[in-house]
Amino acid sequence: MATSIKRLLVGSPMKTAQAAHERLGKKTALAVFSSDALSSVAYSTEAILLVLLAAGSAALGYLVPIVIAITGLLIILTLSYRQTIHAYPTGGGAYIVAKDNLGTMPGLVAGASLLVDYILTVAVSVSAGVAAITSATRGTRLSFLANNRVGICMFMIVFIALMNLRGVRESGAIFAGPTYLFILSMLALIIVGFYRYYTTGAVIPTPDEVHFDTSVESVQHSALTGGALVWLLLRSFAAGCTALTGVEAISNGIPAFKKPESKNASTTLTWMSVIMTALILGTGFLAYKLNAHPGGHGETLVSLMARHTFGGGLFYFGIQAATAAILVLAANTAYADFPRLASLLAADRFLPRQFANRGDRLVFSNGIVILSVLAAVLIIIFKGEEQAMLPLYAVGVFLSFTLSQSGMIIHWLRERRAEEAKEQIREEEALHQTEAGEAGIANREKERIQAIERDIGGNWLISIIINSLGALITFVVLVVIGVTRFTHGAWAVIVLIPILVMLFSSIHKHYVKVARQLTTEGLEPLRPINHEVIVPISGIHRGVIAALQYAKSIAPEHVTAVYIDIDEEATRKLREKWDEWGADVKLVVLQSPYRSLVRPLMRYIDRVERQHDDDVITIVLPEFVPARWWHQLLHNQSSLLLKGSLLFRKGVIVTSVPYHLKD
Amino acid sequence: MATSIKRLLVGSPMKTAQAAHERLGKKTALAVFSSDALSSVAYSTEAILLVLLAAGSAALGYLVPIVIAITGLLIILTLSYRQTIHAYPTGGGAYIVAKDNLGTMPGLVAGASLLVDYILTVAVSVSAGVAAITSATRGTRLSFLANNRVGICMFMIVFIALMNLRGVRESGAIFAGPTYLFILSMLALIIVGFYRYYTTGAVIPTPDEVHFDTSVESVQHSALTGGALVWLLLRSFAAGCTALTGVEAISNGIPAFKKPESKNASTTLTWMSVIMTALILGTGFLAYKLNAHPGGHGETLVSLMARHTFGGGLFYFGIQAATAAILVLAANTAYADFPRLASLLAADRFLPRQFANRGDRLVFSNGIVILSVLAAVLIIIFKGEEQAMLPLYAVGVFLSFTLSQSGMIIHWLRERRAEEAKEQIREEEALHQTEAGEAGIANREKERIQAIERDIGGNWLISIIINSLGALITFVVLVVIGVTRFTHGAWAVIVLIPILVMLFSSIHKHYVKVARQLTTEGLEPLRPINHEVIVPISGIHRGVIAALQYAKSIAPEHVTAVYIDIDEEATRKLREKWDEWGADVKLVVLQSPYRSLVRPLMRYIDRVERQHDDDVITIVLPEFVPARWWHQLLHNQSSLLLKGSLLFRKGVIVTSVPYHLKD
Repeated sequence: MATSIKRLLVGSPMKTAQAAHERLGKKTALAVFSSDALSSVAYSTEAILLVLLAAGSAALGYLVPIVIAITGLLIILTLSYRQTIHAYPTGGGAYIVAKDNLGTMPGLVAGASLLVDYILTVAVSVSAGVAAITSATRGTRLSFLANNRVGICMFMIVFIALMNLRGVRESGAIFAGPTYLFILSMLALIIVGFYRYYTTGAVIPTPDEVHFDTSVESVQHSALTGGALVWLLLRSFAAGCTALTGVEAISNGIPAFKKPESKNASTTLTWMSVIMTALILGTGFLAYKLNAHPGGHGETLVSLMARHTFGGGLFYFGIQAATAAILVLAANTAYADFPRLASLLAADRFLPRQFANRGDRLVFSNGIVILSVLAAVLIIIFKGEEQAMLPLYAVGVFLSFTLSQSGMIIHWLRERRAEEAKEQIREEEALHQTEAGEAGIANREKERIQAIERDIGGNWLISIIINSLGALITFVVLVVIGVTRFTHGAWAVIVLIPILVMLFSSIHKHYVKVARQLTTEGLEPLRPINHEVIVPISGIHRGVIAALQYAKSIAPEHVTAVYIDIDEEATRKLREKWDEWGADVKLVVLQSPYRSLVRPLMRYIDRVERQHDDDVITIVLPEFVPARWWHQLLHNQSSLLLKGSLLFRKGVIVTSVPYHLKD
Repeated sequence: MATSIKRLLVGSPMKTAQAAHERLGKKTALAVFSSDALSSVAYSTEAILLVLLAAGSAALGYLVPIVIAITGLLIILTLSYRQTIHAYPTGGGAYIVAKDNLGTMPGLVAGASLLVDYILTVAVSVSAGVAAITSATRGTRLSFLANNRVGICMFMIVFIALMNLRGVRESGAIFAGPTYLFILSMLALIIVGFYRYYTTGAVIPTPDEVHFDTSVESVQHSALTGGALVWLLLRSFAAGCTALTGVEAISNGIPAFKKPESKNASTTLTWMSVIMTALILGTGFLAYKLNAHPGGHGETLVSLMARHTFGGGLFYFGIQAATAAILVLAANTAYADFPRLASLLAADRFLPRQFANRGDRLVFSNGIVILSVLAAVLIIIFKGEEQAMLPLYAVGVFLSFTLSQSGMIIHWLRERRAEEAKEQIREEEALHQTEAGEAGIANREKERIQAIERDIGGNWLISIIINSLGALITFVVLVVIGVTRFTHGAWAVIVLIPILVMLFSSIHKHYVKVARQLTTEGLEPLRPINHEVIVPISGIHRGVIAALQYAKSIAPEHVTAVYIDIDEEATRKLREKWDEWGADVKLVVLQSPYRSLVRPLMRYIDRVERQHDDDVITIVLPEFVPARWWHQLLHNQSSLLLKGSLLFRKGVIVTSVPYHLKD
């Protein structure tokens, strides 16, 4: 029953050999890997505006410099990650890069940040996707949807989780449509938006209808000065940094690219950054020009600008649909990343090993389920409001950026030392050996070195400088985000990450301790066991006789049946019957003044243990297996109690001899 | 930890030998056994009034004839139960009387009615007790209690349940105080109430201040006529019958009386009926004279009349406290009756045998817990409003009355036949034997017959007439209650009782079937077992080696280790290690293209079963016992799965060989 429901939902099991990897061309790869990063535009500009406008409408003017700063940061990140792509052609997630180069602890910190980050990606993206939908249905007959945001989010999570449990391939066909549709419609919004603005001059009416001069000059004359201004700018910058979440996706997925993988991945990353820059700057400038005040009536900024520009027609709904679709794809990306990272952590014994097992459909089912549950909990806590979750979001992302970039610095330093060592060996080889075979090896070696030199421009110093700049900048941004958004929720992540790291460590320690206890090293060879077998009985019936028979077959001369005397009359009857059916097994009757079954038996086992010091004691329990599950309520309560009491007892092995009841 | 909390709450375990019975004198017995019956007065008159007043204030006049009819019914019941007391000196509950004389099915119907009745006794009494308290705290600083009725009810149930789990004896000291206080204060209310009424003429103002003539004559001229009037009278009579719940208590508890038990019990029953008659008539007449309209402001009728009579002073609060106390005692009575009846049903195999076991403190703990849970559920469903539960209450009571009285008719007919047979034997004996010893036996026999004749007045015909009258009247009342209150909730009980009876029957059938399957009759003597032992392994470590060692000790030549191949590399390593550590055990590697552990193993067991048809297959599972419970999450998922799959498999015995981890 449960199995057929599972089959219906997730499909038939797949063979290990069916695992295959689709290689992606650059255009499809762009669609597959950039949905997370690109979709951030749907909420990041709004996040900046919400911070600025809280300080008064006049602060709107700071939007432009802030989006420019964010695109600057994006360029630095892009350059840094191009380095990572070349250095880790098999996929350089922050966990691997940090662990390889900085050590286990930094690796675990990066791992914890990423896991938290992926959970937030799902929660934020799904919520923002639902916000795009409910913004579009405002004033229509579907306006009731806005009151059921959490419910719709849950529905979407279940849907995405089921798709992933079925094991959707990251297929270009699914991703390409929504991603390119989103890019095109956002570009259309920006272009048409500016055209309309410059032809009509119409701006979006502010919710409270307060008109004011929107030129940058007038804002600069406003009341905010000194510390307060700096604080406002840092806070809104930190809010905007959520635009950069997902930039690292391509560097994780290099093996999925067509050959030459690193080169294609690098090119795709550049394209993605160009598109992102266009969208961030475009929406930022347009929002500024249109004097957009988001946050009223539960409508998103993108919806506000699109409705203003296209007037609520088909094109408007198209933009909202594309936004919702790319946000769902972004959530889906986390469904690929979280289980994969969890499986890496589990394989390194930092998470329970269940996360490393592929399920029926070749996907890491446990990771998918856990991710869904945690994201759902977050959405429920935050009532599906993605803007409320954003302060938690960027901390993890920038912590992993920083660790990854720092790792890359060490990587280049090591690479350089290895290079110098190889150079030396090569020179020595050239001096001593001239055979053809050796020359062949030297040739291949030379090709490899040339390839590396081509990748890194032959200059490790530039690489170090780029990654150092990346590490420094992302660290500064991390501090800014952590400080400015601390009280808005970032504290939770800052507290959570060390807790997760401690959890990883203690799991690891446990597995290491177990492995040490289980090692066959120093173990004596097998030796024969001396048995003592105890059969607790409640009377004489076929179930008991089957158990006695089994017990005698294990250790013919060492079986004792134990009966607890609670009722004298019943004990007398048992003794009479014993001569006929006891099969020469010794019968011990224990007194139980308190009518307890467990305590007298435990004391008896203690006694046997003391008498037969070196032996293994096996308790053979006669147990009914009823034909219907609810019959269980009518039987076996005593064996259940006994088993519970014996569970943690050393040197005692419990064997249930089942007696199958027919009805 | 859990054990020490249990010890603190319910006390240390008690020895079986500590079971003892306190014998009660008539005065204490009256207090112990009549709390249920007497306390009904606290809500029954109100129940009649609520039905009457729903038809208009004019209907108040019918209260007097109805309470007179109810006391008439009480007299018939008293006469009937005096018969039962003499016929069943060891306690004649409706279940026993009906089962003995009418057969199993009627006995089960009576048992089901009584169980339902006891649950309702707890729910109704506790709710009414809380209503007495919240009526008294109206307008005081404790008036907030009225908003937490359900919470207070839960607290009381937990308290009563704990007291009973500790095993409070039905000690006269506890019962005598509240019961006699209640009797005295109710009598005082009636006497002072009438005195005030006749000296001042003041009546209780009706909630809506509508004044009307309260003389019986004027009511008879009111609008209700014919069928509607009959219906109203029947309904209010049915409502008032809840006053008679608990009358049977003395006949259940005869062995607790001092000798001569039956005579003392019979006298006590008469006393109780006299007191009840006084209280029912007194409160009924007084409510009529005072023109009381209960139901407003959540105040009970007794509180309304007491407040009117004593003006809310200390005496008023005394009456409310006594009412609450006797109601709690009434609930406590059900805590003695329900577990005892459940244990009788369990001993006869109509309920799970757990109900027949005495717990640590010599009480039937399971019955106490179940009763508490069910009563609490009822109270939650009915929001602690006892008047809403009353329509469910009387059906079960009168069904058990009817069955018990009908049983008594059969009892007397049988007694008569036995009597005649004995008479004949005695005459024959007198003719043939004259020795001294035989004469002694005849003398004792004669004494017994004289005792019976004294008890039943020497005339079985009168007994049959009394019990027939009782059976007929209670049956008529049962029909009246069932019909008039059907839609008010009685339907639930009418549906529930046959369901319970079916449940009892099917439990009984199951136990009978099991006993038949387990009988040693026709069983062949023990024969030796051929073993096949399978050890599923996940690798080679100390836990696995311990399991192999154990397996070899069971059946040295018949052990196979089974490994599921999921990863080729791991399999290769295992094979290498096997030569060193496998101890000559045969290793079977099973392919698992779908990465499942369970399915290939199950198929392998099938194969082994076919090959070795007559053998017992033992699966020896290496299993970790972690030092901390939460470590369980990190291990043993596979053995758990395996055990689940093997649970219902015939001919397979599962033995876990525990490997105790240190930390």
